[in-house]
Amino acid sequence: MAVTQLVSGSIVGQPCQTLEEVFEITSSGRARFGVVPIENSLVGSIHKTYDLLLEHDLKIVGECYRRIVHCLIASKTTSFKQVKRVFSHPVALEQCQTFFREHPSIVPVSHYDTAGAVKMLTESNMHDAAAIAGEHAAQAYGMKVLRKSIEDEKANYTRFILLSRRSDRFTGDAKTSIVFSMKNLPGVLFKALSVFALRDIDLTRIESRPVRKRAWEYHFYLDFAASVREDRVKKALDHLGEITTFVRVLGSYPRSDKL
Amino acid sequence: MAVTQLVSGSIVGQPCQTLEEVFEITSSGRARFGVVPIENSLVGSIHKTYDLLLEHDLKIVGECYRRIVHCLIASKTTSFKQVKRVFSHPVALEQCQTFFREHPSIVPVSHYDTAGAVKMLTESNMHDAAAIAGEHAAQAYGMKVLRKSIEDEKANYTRFILLSRRSDRFTGDAKTSIVFSMKNLPGVLFKALSVFALRDIDLTRIESRPVRKRAWEYHFYLDFAASVREDRVKKALDHLGEITTFVRVLGSYPRSDKL
Repeated sequence: MAVTQLVSGSIVGQPCQTLEEVFEITSSGRARFGVVPIENSLVGSIHKTYDLLLEHDLKIVGECYRRIVHCLIASKTTSFKQVKRVFSHPVALEQCQTFFREHPSIVPVSHYDTAGAVKMLTESNMHDAAAIAGEHAAQAYGMKVLRKSIEDEKANYTRFILLSRRSDRFTGDAKTSIVFSMKNLPGVLFKALSVFALRDIDLTRIESRPVRKRAWEYHFYLDFAASVREDRVKKALDHLGEITTFVRVLGSYPRSDKL
Repeated sequence: MAVTQLVSGSIVGQPCQTLEEVFEITSSGRARFGVVPIENSLVGSIHKTYDLLLEHDLKIVGECYRRIVHCLIASKTTSFKQVKRVFSHPVALEQCQTFFREHPSIVPVSHYDTAGAVKMLTESNMHDAAAIAGEHAAQAYGMKVLRKSIEDEKANYTRFILLSRRSDRFTGDAKTSIVFSMKNLPGVLFKALSVFALRDIDLTRIESRPVRKRAWEYHFYLDFAASVREDRVKKALDHLGEITTFVRVLGSYPRSDKL
Protein backbone atom coordinates (compact mmCIF):
# COMPACT_ATOMS: atom_id res chain seq x y z
CA MET A 1 0.00 0.00 0.00
CA ALA A 2 2.85 2.36 0.87
CA VAL A 3 4.61 1.58 -2.43
CA THR A 4 1.43 2.30 -4.42
CA GLN A 5 0.99 5.57 -2.57
CA LEU A 6 4.61 6.69 -2.99
CA VAL A 7 5.38 5.66 -6.57
CA SER A 8 3.04 6.65 -9.40
CA GLY A 9 2.69 4.68 -12.64
CA SER A 10 2.91 0.92 -13.08
CA ILE A 11 5.25 -0.80 -10.67
CA VAL A 12 6.92 -4.19 -10.61
CA GLY A 13 7.34 -4.94 -6.91
CA GLN A 14 10.26 -6.85 -5.47
CA PRO A 15 9.50 -8.13 -1.93
CA CYS A 16 12.59 -8.38 0.30
CA GLN A 17 13.22 -10.52 3.37
CA THR A 18 15.13 -7.85 5.25
CA LEU A 19 15.55 -4.09 5.41
CA GLU A 20 19.22 -4.62 4.44
CA GLU A 21 18.07 -6.24 1.19
CA VAL A 22 15.87 -3.23 0.31
CA PHE A 23 18.83 -0.88 0.81
CA GLU A 24 21.16 -3.18 -1.16
CA ILE A 25 18.99 -3.67 -4.25
CA THR A 26 18.29 0.07 -4.36
CA SER A 27 21.97 1.02 -3.89
CA SER A 28 23.12 -1.43 -6.56
CA GLY A 29 20.51 -0.20 -9.06
CA ARG A 30 18.62 -3.52 -9.23
CA ALA A 31 15.63 -1.54 -7.94
CA ARG A 32 14.94 2.08 -8.86
CA PHE A 33 13.28 2.87 -5.52
CA GLY A 34 13.18 1.33 -2.08
CA VAL A 35 10.33 1.65 0.44
CA VAL A 36 10.99 0.98 4.13
CA PRO A 37 9.20 1.73 7.42
CA ILE A 38 11.01 4.23 9.65
CA GLU A 39 8.60 4.70 12.55
CA ASN A 40 5.45 3.12 13.99
CA SER A 41 3.22 5.06 16.37
CA LEU A 42 3.10 2.15 18.85
CA VAL A 43 6.53 0.50 18.50
CA GLY A 44 8.56 3.70 17.98
CA SER A 45 11.50 4.17 15.63
CA ILE A 46 12.71 1.33 13.41
CA HIS A 47 16.36 1.59 14.41
CA LYS A 48 17.66 -0.72 11.72
CA THR A 49 16.35 1.76 9.11
CA TYR A 50 18.19 4.64 10.80
CA ASP A 51 21.43 2.64 10.93
CA LEU A 52 21.08 1.60 7.26
CA LEU A 53 20.51 5.22 6.15
CA LEU A 54 23.99 5.96 7.47
CA GLU A 55 25.62 2.84 5.98
CA HIS A 56 24.24 3.47 2.47
CA ASP A 57 24.47 6.53 0.27
CA LEU A 58 20.76 6.66 -0.62
CA LYS A 59 18.54 9.76 -0.52
CA ILE A 60 15.08 10.05 1.04
CA VAL A 61 12.82 11.34 -1.76
CA GLY A 62 9.37 10.80 -0.23
CA GLU A 63 7.36 9.81 2.84
CA CYS A 64 3.85 8.59 3.62
CA TYR A 65 1.78 7.59 6.62
CA ARG A 66 -0.42 4.48 6.62
CA ARG A 67 -2.92 3.28 9.21
CA ILE A 68 -2.15 -0.34 10.03
CA VAL A 69 -5.21 -2.62 9.86
CA HIS A 70 -4.36 -6.25 10.55
CA CYS A 71 -6.59 -8.85 8.86
CA LEU A 72 -6.71 -12.63 9.30
CA ILE A 73 -6.22 -13.98 5.78
CA ALA A 74 -6.47 -17.56 4.47
CA SER A 75 -7.11 -19.48 1.25
CA LYS A 76 -10.66 -19.44 -0.11
CA THR A 77 -11.15 -23.08 0.93
CA THR A 78 -10.05 -22.56 4.57
CA SER A 79 -12.73 -21.76 7.18
CA PHE A 80 -12.03 -19.90 10.44
CA LYS A 81 -12.68 -23.10 12.45
CA GLN A 82 -9.91 -24.93 10.61
CA VAL A 83 -7.24 -22.34 11.53
CA LYS A 84 -4.66 -23.68 13.99
CA ARG A 85 -1.56 -21.64 13.02
CA VAL A 86 -1.19 -17.99 12.06
CA PHE A 87 1.93 -16.72 10.27
CA SER A 88 3.04 -13.08 10.34
CA HIS A 89 5.82 -10.65 11.21
CA PRO A 90 6.56 -10.81 14.98
CA VAL A 91 5.50 -7.16 15.46
CA ALA A 92 2.12 -7.83 13.77
CA LEU A 93 1.59 -10.93 15.94
CA GLU A 94 2.40 -8.89 19.05
CA GLN A 95 -0.13 -6.22 18.00
CA CYS A 96 -2.96 -8.81 17.91
CA GLN A 97 -2.61 -10.20 21.45
CA THR A 98 -6.33 -9.85 22.23
CA PHE A 99 -7.20 -12.04 19.23
CA PHE A 100 -4.78 -14.78 20.38
CA ARG A 101 -6.06 -14.59 23.97
CA GLU A 102 -9.65 -15.04 22.76
CA HIS A 103 -8.61 -18.00 20.55
CA PRO A 104 -6.12 -19.95 22.67
CA SER A 105 -6.13 -22.94 20.28
CA ILE A 106 -4.58 -20.79 17.53
CA VAL A 107 -0.77 -20.61 17.63
CA PRO A 108 1.13 -17.54 16.33
CA VAL A 109 4.16 -18.36 14.13
CA SER A 110 6.84 -15.80 13.18
CA HIS A 111 7.43 -15.03 9.50
CA TYR A 112 9.76 -12.43 7.94
CA ASP A 113 6.95 -10.29 6.50
CA THR A 114 3.16 -9.78 6.75
CA ALA A 115 2.28 -9.77 3.04
CA GLY A 116 5.06 -12.33 2.52
CA ALA A 117 3.20 -14.72 4.88
CA VAL A 118 0.09 -14.49 2.65
CA LYS A 119 2.21 -15.22 -0.42
CA MET A 120 3.78 -18.21 1.37
CA LEU A 121 0.27 -19.62 2.12
CA THR A 122 -0.63 -19.52 -1.59
CA GLU A 123 2.46 -21.60 -2.34
CA SER A 124 1.90 -24.13 0.44
CA ASN A 125 -0.60 -26.90 1.02
CA MET A 126 -1.48 -25.96 4.61
CA HIS A 127 -5.23 -26.07 5.23
CA ASP A 128 -5.00 -25.22 8.93
CA ALA A 129 -3.00 -22.02 8.47
CA ALA A 130 -3.76 -18.31 8.08
CA ALA A 131 -1.70 -15.11 7.96
CA ILE A 132 -2.00 -11.64 9.47
CA ALA A 133 -1.52 -8.86 6.91
CA GLY A 134 -3.21 -5.86 5.32
CA GLU A 135 -6.44 -6.39 3.31
CA HIS A 136 -4.50 -5.43 0.18
CA ALA A 137 -2.41 -8.63 0.48
CA ALA A 138 -5.57 -10.79 0.34
CA GLN A 139 -6.63 -9.12 -2.91
CA ALA A 140 -3.13 -9.26 -4.41
CA TYR A 141 -2.77 -13.00 -3.81
CA GLY A 142 -6.40 -14.11 -4.39
CA MET A 143 -6.99 -14.98 -0.74
CA LYS A 144 -9.91 -14.43 1.65
CA VAL A 145 -10.22 -12.12 4.69
CA LEU A 146 -11.54 -14.26 7.60
CA ARG A 147 -11.46 -11.48 10.22
CA LYS A 148 -10.89 -7.77 9.63
CA SER A 149 -9.14 -5.31 11.96
CA ILE A 150 -7.97 -7.74 14.66
CA GLU A 151 -5.26 -5.34 15.94
CA ASP A 152 -5.40 -4.46 19.67
CA GLU A 153 -4.93 -0.74 19.13
CA LYS A 154 -6.73 1.13 16.34
CA ALA A 155 -4.43 4.19 16.57
CA ASN A 156 -1.64 2.26 14.84
CA TYR A 157 0.19 4.16 12.11
CA THR A 158 3.47 3.65 10.27
CA ARG A 159 5.58 6.23 8.50
CA PHE A 160 7.31 4.88 5.37
CA ILE A 161 10.10 6.53 3.38
CA LEU A 162 10.95 6.31 -0.31
CA LEU A 163 14.64 5.79 -1.10
CA SER A 164 16.48 6.55 -4.32
CA ARG A 165 20.07 6.82 -5.55
CA ARG A 166 19.30 10.26 -6.96
CA SER A 167 18.28 13.25 -4.90
CA ASP A 168 15.20 15.31 -5.79
CA ARG A 169 16.00 18.28 -3.50
CA PHE A 170 12.31 19.11 -3.45
CA THR A 171 11.49 22.79 -2.88
CA GLY A 172 7.71 22.92 -2.22
CA ASP A 173 6.10 22.08 1.14
CA ALA A 174 9.15 20.06 2.11
CA LYS A 175 10.55 18.00 4.93
CA THR A 176 14.31 17.49 5.29
CA SER A 177 16.07 14.68 7.13
CA ILE A 178 19.66 15.05 8.34
CA VAL A 179 22.07 13.11 10.53
CA PHE A 180 24.94 14.57 12.56
CA SER A 181 27.31 13.72 15.39
CA MET A 182 29.15 15.80 17.96
CA LYS A 183 32.07 15.45 20.34
CA ASN A 184 30.04 15.26 23.54
CA LEU A 185 26.46 15.72 24.67
CA PRO A 186 26.49 18.35 27.49
CA GLY A 187 25.34 21.69 26.09
CA VAL A 188 26.11 20.75 22.49
CA LEU A 189 22.76 19.15 21.67
CA PHE A 190 21.03 22.35 22.83
CA LYS A 191 23.31 24.41 20.59
CA ALA A 192 22.64 22.09 17.65
CA LEU A 193 18.87 22.50 18.05
CA SER A 194 19.32 26.27 18.47
CA VAL A 195 20.59 26.70 14.90
CA PHE A 196 17.11 25.66 13.72
CA ALA A 197 15.02 27.34 16.45
CA LEU A 198 16.82 30.68 15.92
CA ARG A 199 15.76 30.55 12.25
CA ASP A 200 12.16 29.45 12.95
CA ILE A 201 12.72 26.06 11.36
CA ASP A 202 10.32 23.59 12.98
CA LEU A 203 11.82 20.28 14.09
CA THR A 204 9.37 17.43 13.59
CA ARG A 205 11.46 14.56 14.96
CA ILE A 206 14.67 13.78 16.84
CA GLU A 207 16.22 10.34 17.20
CA SER A 208 19.64 9.18 18.42
CA ARG A 209 21.60 6.02 17.71
CA PRO A 210 24.95 4.89 19.13
CA VAL A 211 28.11 5.48 17.08
CA ARG A 212 29.93 2.18 16.36
CA LYS A 213 33.39 1.87 17.96
CA ARG A 214 32.93 5.11 19.95
CA ALA A 215 31.04 4.11 23.09
CA TRP A 216 28.51 6.70 24.37
CA GLU A 217 28.74 8.93 21.31
CA TYR A 218 25.60 9.33 19.24
CA HIS A 219 24.38 10.03 15.75
CA PHE A 220 21.42 12.41 15.97
CA TYR A 221 18.76 12.23 13.28
CA LEU A 222 16.61 15.35 12.80
CA ASP A 223 13.60 15.98 10.57
CA PHE A 224 12.51 19.57 9.97
CA ALA A 225 9.76 21.22 7.94
CA ALA A 226 11.76 23.07 5.25
CA SER A 227 13.84 22.39 2.14
CA VAL A 228 17.66 22.42 1.84
CA ARG A 229 17.14 24.83 -1.07
CA GLU A 230 15.89 27.53 1.31
CA ASP A 231 18.42 30.14 2.32
CA ARG A 232 17.64 29.91 6.06
CA VAL A 233 18.22 26.12 5.89
CA LYS A 234 21.57 26.54 4.13
CA LYS A 235 22.60 28.99 6.86
CA ALA A 236 21.33 26.67 9.62
CA LEU A 237 23.35 23.77 8.17
CA ASP A 238 26.49 25.94 7.90
CA HIS A 239 25.96 26.95 11.53
CA LEU A 240 25.43 23.29 12.50
CA GLY A 241 28.75 22.47 10.82
CA GLU A 242 30.52 24.80 13.27
CA ILE A 243 29.23 22.78 16.25
CA THR A 244 29.30 19.21 14.96
CA THR A 245 32.00 16.83 13.72
CA PHE A 246 29.84 15.32 10.98
CA VAL A 247 26.65 16.39 9.12
CA ARG A 248 24.90 14.67 6.22
CA VAL A 249 21.65 15.63 4.46
CA LEU A 250 19.58 12.50 3.87
CA GLY A 251 17.08 14.29 1.62
CA SER A 252 14.48 17.04 1.09
CA TYR A 253 11.13 15.62 -0.05
CA PRO A 254 7.40 16.45 -0.19
CA ARG A 255 5.99 16.57 3.31
CA SER A 256 3.08 14.23 3.95
CA ASP A 257 0.35 14.93 6.51
CA LYS A 258 0.28 12.72 9.58
CA LEU A 259 -2.85 10.60 9.79
CA MET B 1 28.23 -8.34 38.08
CA ALA B 2 26.06 -5.23 37.88
CA VAL B 3 24.05 -6.35 40.94
CA THR B 4 27.26 -6.93 42.95
CA GLN B 5 28.53 -3.49 41.95
CA LEU B 6 25.26 -1.67 42.73
CA VAL B 7 24.16 -3.33 45.97
CA SER B 8 26.56 -3.67 48.89
CA GLY B 9 26.33 -6.35 51.55
CA SER B 10 25.23 -9.95 51.08
CA ILE B 11 22.59 -10.44 48.38
CA VAL B 12 20.16 -13.21 47.57
CA GLY B 13 19.70 -12.92 43.81
CA GLN B 14 16.45 -13.67 42.02
CA PRO B 15 16.98 -14.16 38.26
CA CYS B 16 13.99 -13.10 36.12
CA GLN B 17 12.97 -14.22 32.64
CA THR B 18 11.80 -10.78 31.52
CA LEU B 19 12.30 -7.09 32.29
CA GLU B 20 8.58 -6.93 33.23
CA GLU B 21 9.21 -9.54 35.93
CA VAL B 22 12.06 -7.46 37.46
CA PHE B 23 9.77 -4.41 37.64
CA GLU B 24 6.89 -6.48 39.07
CA ILE B 25 8.78 -8.23 41.87
CA THR B 26 10.37 -4.91 42.85
CA SER B 27 7.04 -3.02 42.74
CA SER B 28 5.25 -5.71 44.76
CA GLY B 29 7.99 -5.79 47.42
CA ARG B 30 9.02 -9.40 46.74
CA ALA B 31 12.44 -7.94 45.87
CA ARG B 32 13.95 -4.94 47.61
CA PHE B 33 15.87 -3.80 44.51
CA GLY B 34 15.71 -4.43 40.80
CA VAL B 35 18.61 -4.19 38.35
CA VAL B 36 17.93 -3.77 34.62
CA PRO B 37 19.93 -2.68 31.56
CA ILE B 38 18.86 0.65 30.08
CA GLU B 39 21.40 1.22 27.31
CA ASN B 40 24.11 -0.67 25.44
CA SER B 41 26.83 1.19 23.54
CA LEU B 42 26.30 -0.97 20.43
CA VAL B 43 22.58 -1.78 20.47
CA GLY B 44 21.37 1.59 21.80
CA SER B 45 18.55 2.18 24.28
CA ILE B 46 16.62 -0.73 25.78
CA HIS B 47 13.17 0.65 24.99
CA LYS B 48 11.27 -1.86 27.07
CA THR B 49 13.06 -0.50 30.16
CA TYR B 50 12.03 3.08 29.28
CA ASP B 51 8.40 2.01 28.78
CA LEU B 52 8.37 0.05 32.05
CA LEU B 53 9.78 3.03 34.00
CA LEU B 54 6.62 4.90 33.01
CA GLU B 55 4.24 2.02 33.75
CA HIS B 56 5.62 1.39 37.24
CA ASP B 57 6.08 3.77 40.15
CA LEU B 58 9.68 2.78 40.91
CA LYS B 59 12.58 5.16 41.50
CA ILE B 60 16.04 4.99 39.96
CA VAL B 61 18.47 4.97 42.92
CA GLY B 62 21.73 4.00 41.20
CA GLU B 63 23.54 3.33 37.94
CA CYS B 64 26.66 1.53 36.78
CA TYR B 65 28.53 0.84 33.56
CA ARG B 66 29.92 -2.59 32.73
CA ARG B 67 32.13 -3.70 29.87
CA ILE B 68 30.51 -6.72 28.21
CA VAL B 69 32.94 -9.64 27.73
CA HIS B 70 31.29 -12.70 26.23
CA CYS B 71 32.79 -16.07 27.16
CA LEU B 72 32.03 -19.55 25.83
CA ILE B 73 31.16 -21.58 28.92
CA ALA B 74 30.50 -25.30 29.34
CA SER B 75 30.57 -28.03 31.97
CA LYS B 76 33.99 -29.16 33.20
CA THR B 77 33.63 -32.46 31.31
CA THR B 78 32.81 -30.84 27.95
CA SER B 79 35.67 -30.08 25.54
CA PHE B 80 35.53 -27.39 22.85
CA LYS B 81 35.46 -30.06 20.11
CA GLN B 82 32.27 -31.58 21.55
CA VAL B 83 30.31 -28.30 21.35
CA LYS B 84 27.56 -28.38 18.71
CA ARG B 85 25.01 -25.92 20.22
CA VAL B 86 25.49 -22.63 22.04
CA PHE B 87 22.72 -21.12 24.18
CA SER B 88 22.48 -17.41 25.01
CA HIS B 89 20.40 -14.26 24.83
CA PRO B 90 19.75 -13.32 21.16
CA VAL B 91 21.65 -10.02 21.53
CA ALA B 92 24.73 -11.85 22.91
CA LEU B 93 24.57 -14.39 20.05
CA GLU B 94 24.37 -11.54 17.55
CA GLN B 95 27.41 -9.87 19.13
CA CYS B 96 29.54 -13.01 18.51
CA GLN B 97 28.99 -13.37 14.75
CA THR B 98 32.72 -13.73 13.97
CA PHE B 99 32.95 -16.71 16.33
CA PHE B 100 30.00 -18.46 14.64
CA ARG B 101 31.38 -17.71 11.16
CA GLU B 102 34.71 -19.28 12.13
CA HIS B 103 32.96 -22.35 13.58
CA PRO B 104 30.12 -23.10 11.13
CA SER B 105 29.35 -26.49 12.72
CA ILE B 106 28.28 -24.75 15.98
CA VAL B 107 24.64 -23.65 16.03
CA PRO B 108 23.48 -20.63 18.08
CA VAL B 109 20.27 -21.21 20.12
CA SER B 110 18.24 -18.40 21.72
CA HIS B 111 17.76 -18.39 25.49
CA TYR B 112 16.07 -15.76 27.68
CA ASP B 113 19.25 -14.79 29.52
CA THR B 114 23.05 -15.13 29.28
CA ALA B 115 23.80 -16.23 32.87
CA GLY B 116 20.48 -18.14 32.83
CA ALA B 117 21.79 -20.24 29.91
CA VAL B 118 24.80 -21.29 32.03
CA LYS B 119 22.46 -22.22 34.92
CA MET B 120 20.30 -24.22 32.49
CA LEU B 121 23.38 -26.19 31.33
CA THR B 122 24.18 -27.21 34.93
CA GLU B 123 20.67 -28.61 35.24
CA SER B 124 20.69 -30.48 31.93
CA ASN B 125 22.49 -33.51 30.61
CA MET B 126 23.68 -31.99 27.35
CA HIS B 127 27.32 -32.83 26.62
CA ASP B 128 27.39 -31.10 23.22
CA ALA B 129 26.19 -27.72 24.51
CA ALA B 130 27.78 -24.49 25.75
CA ALA B 131 26.54 -21.03 26.69
CA ILE B 132 27.71 -17.47 26.04
CA ALA B 133 27.80 -15.36 29.21
CA GLY B 134 30.12 -13.32 31.41
CA GLU B 135 33.06 -15.06 33.13
CA HIS B 136 31.33 -14.46 36.46
CA ALA B 137 28.54 -16.90 35.48
CA ALA B 138 31.10 -19.71 34.99
CA GLN B 139 32.44 -19.15 38.52
CA ALA B 140 28.96 -18.84 40.04
CA TYR B 141 27.74 -22.14 38.59
CA GLY B 142 31.00 -24.17 38.77
CA MET B 143 31.47 -24.26 35.01
CA LYS B 144 34.50 -23.85 32.73
CA VAL B 145 35.44 -21.04 30.32
CA LEU B 146 36.28 -22.65 26.94
CA ARG B 147 36.94 -19.36 25.08
CA LYS B 148 37.27 -15.88 26.55
CA SER B 149 36.20 -12.60 24.93
CA ILE B 150 34.57 -13.96 21.76
CA GLU B 151 32.55 -10.76 21.16
CA ASP B 152 33.01 -9.06 17.76
CA GLU B 153 33.39 -5.57 19.20
CA LYS B 154 35.52 -4.93 22.29
CA ALA B 155 34.02 -1.43 22.91
CA ASN B 156 30.81 -3.00 24.19
CA TYR B 157 29.40 -1.43 27.37
CA THR B 158 26.05 -1.58 29.12
CA ARG B 159 24.58 0.94 31.53
CA PHE B 160 22.49 -0.68 34.28
CA ILE B 161 20.11 1.07 36.68
CA LEU B 162 19.12 0.17 40.24
CA LEU B 163 15.38 0.35 41.00
CA SER B 164 13.69 0.73 44.36
CA ARG B 165 10.21 1.55 45.71
CA ARG B 166 11.74 4.27 47.89
CA SER B 167 13.54 7.34 46.61
CA ASP B 168 16.97 8.31 47.88
CA ARG B 169 17.00 11.85 46.42
CA PHE B 170 20.77 11.73 46.42
CA THR B 171 22.48 15.13 46.79
CA GLY B 172 26.19 14.49 46.07
CA ASP B 173 27.66 14.15 42.56
CA ALA B 174 24.25 13.24 41.20
CA LYS B 175 22.49 12.35 38.00
CA THR B 176 18.74 12.85 37.66
CA SER B 177 16.39 11.09 35.24
CA ILE B 178 13.04 12.62 34.27
CA VAL B 179 10.28 11.92 31.74
CA PHE B 180 7.91 14.48 30.23
CA SER B 181 5.48 14.93 27.35
CA MET B 182 4.27 17.96 25.45
CA LYS B 183 1.43 18.91 23.14
CA ASN B 184 3.44 19.04 19.91
CA LEU B 185 7.06 18.91 18.83
CA PRO B 186 7.71 22.08 16.73
CA GLY B 187 9.63 24.60 18.88
CA VAL B 188 8.56 22.98 22.14
CA LEU B 189 11.39 20.50 22.46
CA PHE B 190 13.88 23.34 22.05
CA LYS B 191 12.09 25.29 24.81
CA ALA B 192 12.10 22.22 27.05
CA LEU B 193 15.87 21.80 26.66
CA SER B 194 16.34 25.56 27.19
CA VAL B 195 15.13 25.37 30.81
CA PHE B 196 18.21 23.26 31.56
CA ALA B 197 20.72 25.03 29.27
CA LEU B 198 19.76 28.46 30.68
CA ARG B 199 20.65 27.18 34.16
CA ASP B 200 23.92 25.46 33.11
CA ILE B 201 22.49 22.02 33.83
CA ASP B 202 24.29 19.51 31.57
CA LEU B 203 22.08 17.05 29.74
CA THR B 204 23.75 13.65 29.46
CA ARG B 205 21.08 11.80 27.47
CA ILE B 206 17.83 12.31 25.57
CA GLU B 207 15.51 9.54 24.41
CA SER B 208 11.95 9.57 23.06
CA ARG B 209 9.26 6.90 23.04
CA PRO B 210 5.76 7.02 21.49
CA VAL B 211 2.80 7.84 23.73
CA ARG B 212 0.21 5.01 23.71
CA LYS B 213 -3.16 5.91 22.17
CA ARG B 214 -1.88 9.32 21.01
CA ALA B 215 -0.22 8.74 17.65
CA TRP B 216 2.91 10.87 16.96
CA GLU B 217 3.13 12.27 20.49
CA TYR B 218 6.21 11.37 22.49
CA HIS B 219 7.48 10.85 26.01
CA PHE B 220 10.92 12.44 26.27
CA TYR B 221 13.38 10.96 28.76
CA LEU B 222 16.20 13.24 29.92
CA ASP B 223 19.21 12.58 32.14
CA PHE B 224 21.12 15.51 33.56
CA ALA B 225 24.12 15.92 35.86
CA ALA B 226 22.53 17.48 38.98
CA SER B 227 20.26 16.55 41.91
CA VAL B 228 16.55 17.44 42.31
CA ARG B 229 17.54 18.87 45.70
CA GLU B 230 19.48 21.69 44.02
CA ASP B 231 17.68 24.99 43.77
CA ARG B 232 18.48 25.50 40.06
CA VAL B 233 17.01 22.05 39.30
CA LYS B 234 13.81 22.83 41.24
CA LYS B 235 13.47 26.03 39.21
CA ALA B 236 14.22 24.26 35.94
CA LEU B 237 11.54 21.65 36.69
CA ASP B 238 8.99 24.38 37.57
CA HIS B 239 9.88 26.09 34.30
CA LEU B 240 9.52 22.76 32.44
CA GLY B 241 6.06 22.38 33.97
CA GLU B 242 4.98 25.59 32.22
CA ILE B 243 5.86 24.13 28.79
CA THR B 244 4.87 20.48 29.17
CA THR B 245 1.64 18.58 29.89
CA PHE B 246 3.32 15.96 32.09
CA VAL B 247 6.60 15.74 34.05
CA ARG B 248 7.81 12.98 36.38
CA VAL B 249 11.13 12.68 38.21
CA LEU B 250 12.37 9.10 37.95
CA GLY B 251 15.14 9.60 40.51
CA SER B 252 18.31 11.42 41.62
CA TYR B 253 21.17 9.02 42.25
CA PRO B 254 25.00 8.87 42.51
CA ARG B 255 26.50 9.49 39.09
CA SER B 256 28.78 6.74 37.82
CA ASP B 257 31.68 7.35 35.43
CA LYS B 258 31.30 6.01 31.92
CA LEU B 259 33.82 3.31 31.10
